[in-house]
Amino acid sequence: MNQIGDHFELEITFTQAEVNAFAKVSGDLNPIHWDEAFAANTPFKKPIIHGAFITSIFSRVMGMEFPGKGSIYLSQQTQFKRPMYVGQAYRFYFELLSIDVAKHSATYATQVFELERNKITVDGQASLMNTALF
Amino acid sequence: MNQIGDHFELEITFTQAEVNAFAKVSGDLNPIHWDEAFAANTPFKKPIIHGAFITSIFSRVMGMEFPGKGSIYLSQQTQFKRPMYVGQAYRFYFELLSIDVAKHSATYATQVFELERNKITVDGQASLMNTALF
Repeated sequence: MNQIGDHFELEITFTQAEVNAFAKVSGDLNPIHWDEAFAANTPFKKPIIHGAFITSIFSRVMGMEFPGKGSIYLSQQTQFKRPMYVGQAYRFYFELLSIDVAKHSATYATQVFELERNKITVDGQASLMNTALF
Repeated sequence: MNQIGDHFELEITFTQAEVNAFAKVSGDLNPIHWDEAFAANTPFKKPIIHGAFITSIFSRVMGMEFPGKGSIYLSQQTQFKRPMYVGQAYRFYFELLSIDVAKHSATYATQVFELERNKITVDGQASLMNTALF
């Protein structure tokens, strides 16, 4: 039974190889994501992870783990608040915020925190439909 | 010079191989995206493209083509209004909605339409920073 306040979290540390694979599959070859020399001359100093890769993790978790199978994305709002780097540990946090029984849908907080300093890097909210769960 | 109303569009037809590659890289192995037998027993009838794959295309276009190099994602809001399928032609449409000179940022409409029937499948809005352009 899904209850308001249910939550789920996982820790992820991304590798440059994973970011490069995402760049290739998405076609997003912006050098800010993989070129150390290019990134060194930006305010970020180092390559930053694609924001779209982070939202892909949201999709993966909600489709497969929490709430899981049968979930269909209705919407996602995401604010990219701080850059995210490879080799840095992050905590992904999901919380069930509301349920709409008539629409078989629910809204979730979708957030990422830099693990060590507990600083939020990505904030957001998703809504999804799951006829078996809601 | 970037002006309100500037727009950019491109047509994309996705293959199942591309969707499978996205599934692998994102870890989102939800069978609704690749398993024909599973999908046949859902309201969608056929495998549907990951919403997160579509938003990855938004990121790719804005980072590389329109407005292009140097763009940093600040936020993305996306509504998935209709399922999207492999082998179907889609038109991606981007339009510059507003510029905030003080923040070197701008907002864009990010939309996808089924090409043949001109039905909107994904609606959304992005904001991004680009110190060279805004």
